[in-house]
Amino acid sequence: MPDLALLQGIHDEALPLIGQGRVADYIPALAGVPANRLGIAICTADGELLGAGDYLDPFSIQSISKVFSLIQAMSLYEEQELWSRVGKEPSGNPFNSLVQLEFEHGIPRNPFINAGALVVSDMLQGRLSAPKHRMLELVRELSGNQHIVCDKVVARSEYEHSARNAAICYLMKSFGNFHNDVDGVMKSYFNHCAIRMSCADLARAFFFLANKGVCLGGRRMISERQSRQVNALLATCGLYDGAGEFAYRVGMPGKSGVGGGIVAVVPGELSVCVWSPELDPSGNSLAGTRMLELLAKRLGRSIF
Amino acid sequence: MPDLALLQGIHDEALPLIGQGRVADYIPALAGVPANRLGIAICTADGELLGAGDYLDPFSIQSISKVFSLIQAMSLYEEQELWSRVGKEPSGNPFNSLVQLEFEHGIPRNPFINAGALVVSDMLQGRLSAPKHRMLELVRELSGNQHIVCDKVVARSEYEHSARNAAICYLMKSFGNFHNDVDGVMKSYFNHCAIRMSCADLARAFFFLANKGVCLGGRRMISERQSRQVNALLATCGLYDGAGEFAYRVGMPGKSGVGGGIVAVVPGELSVCVWSPELDPSGNSLAGTRMLELLAKRLGRSIF
Amino acid sequence: MPDLALLQGIHDEALPLIGQGRVADYIPALAGVPANRLGIAICTADGELLGAGDYLDPFSIQSISKVFSLIQAMSLYEEQELWSRVGKEPSGNPFNSLVQLEFEHGIPRNPFINAGALVVSDMLQGRLSAPKHRMLELVRELSGNQHIVCDKVVARSEYEHSARNAAICYLMKSFGNFHNDVDGVMKSYFNHCAIRMSCADLARAFFFLANKGVCLGGRRMISERQSRQVNALLATCGLYDGAGEFAYRVGMPGKSGVGGGIVAVVPGELSVCVWSPELDPSGNSLAGTRMLELLAKRLGRSIF
Amino acid sequence: MPDLALLQGIHDEALPLIGQGRVADYIPALAGVPANRLGIAICTADGELLGAGDYLDPFSIQSISKVFSLIQAMSLYEEQELWSRVGKEPSGNPFNSLVQLEFEHGIPRNPFINAGALVVSDMLQGRLSAPKHRMLELVRELSGNQHIVCDKVVARSEYEHSARNAAICYLMKSFGNFHNDVDGVMKSYFNHCAIRMSCADLARAFFFLANKGVCLGGRRMISERQSRQVNALLATCGLYDGAGEFAYRVGMPGKSGVGGGIVAVVPGELSVCVWSPELDPSGNSLAGTRMLELLAKRLGRSIF
Repeated sequence: MPDLALLQGIHDEALPLIGQGRVADYIPALAGVPANRLGIAICTADGELLGAGDYLDPFSIQSISKVFSLIQAMSLYEEQELWSRVGKEPSGNPFNSLVQLEFEHGIPRNPFINAGALVVSDMLQGRLSAPKHRMLELVRELSGNQHIVCDKVVARSEYEHSARNAAICYLMKSFGNFHNDVDGVMKSYFNHCAIRMSCADLARAFFFLANKGVCLGGRRMISERQSRQVNALLATCGLYDGAGEFAYRVGMPGKSGVGGGIVAVVPGELSVCVWSPELDPSGNSLAGTRMLELLAKRLGRSIF
Repeated sequence: MPDLALLQGIHDEALPLIGQGRVADYIPALAGVPANRLGIAICTADGELLGAGDYLDPFSIQSISKVFSLIQAMSLYEEQELWSRVGKEPSGNPFNSLVQLEFEHGIPRNPFINAGALVVSDMLQGRLSAPKHRMLELVRELSGNQHIVCDKVVARSEYEHSARNAAICYLMKSFGNFHNDVDGVMKSYFNHCAIRMSCADLARAFFFLANKGVCLGGRRMISERQSRQVNALLATCGLYDGAGEFAYRVGMPGKSGVGGGIVAVVPGELSVCVWSPELDPSGNSLAGTRMLELLAKRLGRSIF
Repeated sequence: MPDLALLQGIHDEALPLIGQGRVADYIPALAGVPANRLGIAICTADGELLGAGDYLDPFSIQSISKVFSLIQAMSLYEEQELWSRVGKEPSGNPFNSLVQLEFEHGIPRNPFINAGALVVSDMLQGRLSAPKHRMLELVRELSGNQHIVCDKVVARSEYEHSARNAAICYLMKSFGNFHNDVDGVMKSYFNHCAIRMSCADLARAFFFLANKGVCLGGRRMISERQSRQVNALLATCGLYDGAGEFAYRVGMPGKSGVGGGIVAVVPGELSVCVWSPELDPSGNSLAGTRMLELLAKRLGRSIF
Repeated sequence: MPDLALLQGIHDEALPLIGQGRVADYIPALAGVPANRLGIAICTADGELLGAGDYLDPFSIQSISKVFSLIQAMSLYEEQELWSRVGKEPSGNPFNSLVQLEFEHGIPRNPFINAGALVVSDMLQGRLSAPKHRMLELVRELSGNQHIVCDKVVARSEYEHSARNAAICYLMKSFGNFHNDVDGVMKSYFNHCAIRMSCADLARAFFFLANKGVCLGGRRMISERQSRQVNALLATCGLYDGAGEFAYRVGMPGKSGVGGGIVAVVPGELSVCVWSPELDPSGNSLAGTRMLELLAKRLGRSIF
């Protein structure tokens, strides 16, 4: 069983890695985050929360938001319709590449690369009247924290550096796989990415994937089968071009963001979130990945 | 708990799918296999074997042999040396594509695509004096069946249609990632692919991956950690370009072959092998995948 | 020497090809053009114009406008600045592909594929106060026809189907190779494409490339050296993915448009324009290419 | 009219470029060539030969041999059969890339990239009893020099570093576009590449392409039409990935080799060969290209 001493030990062992990675700097608002942060939080099967280090500091969740978007789309669309517009396979390419998207006629490989998340956002835009507000409602309910907000400065900064994402949207539009106004969808998308949550918030928010679809508050978010499906997608596609290495080293379904957060799940046992802003060359938190690797090793827990 | 009635029920439910797929026909020797075969065998945690349908019929294991080759290489080479010559990431491309291999300077994406298995065979060739014989010894020990043999007609037929595999080997050689004679390595490789085993043999042979690295006979084949790593690789890369879909539908680490076999594992619980020669468009057994999907559903077992 | 009988003979011999190609239909406004048009006009070294068939009918010049844009950019920018933003090599890819553009960091292969013409338009936008008007002035002067106009319906129709071109622009912007507002540049670009000129207009307008840079009216448009350079670019890159075949069959520097026009030049001897709306699979006028092939054969004229 | 003073002036002006390029070093036998050589030879319309610098030194013709192979194939095969196995378009990719070849189902883009020359060699192998000897006969007749030989050391060295070319051959074989034994064809191919000729030899040998297909000795090698076609192919595809730049700067159909030689032609006027072993980043002779550029400028001769 995980306890505070375990988490503190993992935290302390990963601490010396700080300084070896690189904070994301493609937008100024992210580049300004203090590099020396390190936090870990676990939500156990009975819903208890344990944390160490900076686990209460909110940070930009970035691509972790793609999981929340997918959950929303799964509840709004029939399975068949959803998966006709986005695939379920690992991409084998950088997260924002257009090459594969062109070869595959505008159908993104999976919902966790940028193209896939943008098409999911396009789907949400078509069904939700206030997508940004609904997303905040969702993450507040999942984490039990009513104070979660979106960082407007980050969202604006993303928007001002959105040329490649716009290229992706227009390419999908040229194939008929993007229906709404590109600008409007991108604004929602960047707002979702710019939501700020702490390790504690995210460990709690992902509890439902360790708990067969039922969130901490007791509400069923998705069916047990859907919960397994999301975990399967996370295991094969959740870490960009590093999914295989992550499975090999950590062995948990997970999702990373360039803000330095990584969430992961051992179904039936626990949800966990780590955070450290410095990234490895694949764009995943360097010290964060190490903490998850240590956790899997110490607990002897992995899905494999 | 799985029992005979469960397996028989799954078998019967999948039976009507026969006729909807296509037997592999890229080599004449495989095209001649009767299309209407259907078998399933399970090896439970306590080592008991259950089977239904044609589960005792031997068939060509084809790419399933890539797992055995990897196991051999893991015991012959240091972790670092092995993974410097082959990656751990899903390929996102057809199993025999040269495009990615050229872009990535002759380092194959993972050991379960052709390029990766060929480089692993090249490594075995460099360390084993009689690689074909040693492979037979391995599969006989793992399955407890001393009568397993290689089908020389299939091996020769593969060799006579090996131009693309030769292209792959020479491309890796041009990048310095292939050291032995191409012809010699390909002959070993095709001999491994042409080994004939039944569902019963394969379910037993893969027991060690459900049993933390210890095979049915009691010998430790690989460490517990290595066993987790192999399962992780199978989950992310084991089904060619259909790994994500397989994870989504079945949720078990697995490996398929164009002979129509698929092996899969639920760590700590069971190993399973299904067989039906007709393939889906991704090259995986159509009825076989369905049987695994039904098994996961009925047992409520999946790694997710 | 070309004479009217020669042109009429070529026209008559190509006439039976009508019905074998396909009118461009990616925008409704172009799809409505009568398919059975066929015209040819030649401007000889002494400036005389000869024509046959529908050589006085105006049609949508489409990509032929890319040559006019390049000429403008050559007069507005230093050689080095211009060619740092667009290359001089054949693309070996469809005219609107994004793949190569991504691999080559947003620098288009040449000014005659869409990406290249869009970056040239972006450059014009940065230096000209009224780019659409200036383009009309240019083609009117070159052809000596003050009545040339832009077809606003076609321009609008192009704009309404511009998702792929928008993707191209944003991709270049993401690499820092596109500086102005995407919408504004695309509007200018589509206006240039939608200019309507006849074979007579275009044969006259391209006379300067057969005349060392001096147009029919006597004004030097570009230097003799630049004239050779433009012809060299046309010979290697002027016919999309069919430049080699066109050189092989026709042997003249040329530029085609999906409106069915093709202009070509024998330096020192003549400029020629053919028109027939039905296209071959490469997107070049089917009967038009045939007329040019016959002309080269009958006159024994080619640059090779 | 070109005269000795002109050639000597061009030679002297290019001389300071020596030291700025890099001698090909992918095979040891080529890396040993003295880097400071510089020669130019012209064969005028009346068959006169002029030369300056090291124009009588033989060097390894390398890819220039691809033109001779094509000429042989054009005389042995029907036009349609030949061009069904190799294309006529620029490749837009490095000369030895497999990517495009795989996408285009084993049909090489043109006869002047490695894949194309290898398929042409495969065709020659199928029709000629002693292909190496016949090639020597051809180049001896074309140049009027009976002492031309193949450098066996270079040929062997090429063969020992042939993994990538083998990959190309096997890939084409897998698509059904390569019929003979790979090793045998490669040996012929490398023998052709290893032929040693001087600038004088090559300027004379290419005279037929400036003379409507008739060689210096008076024999018609190919028809006038075929001569134009070969020049067209050279103009669009003769300089690897630098054909556009070469056309822009020099404006003559030409073919380069990694031995540092470049041949070029102004139809009806002259054939020329330059040589200097140091290459630019595209693999074309650095000082050689400069000499051709100066020649075009001084003579005012170009096809454009």
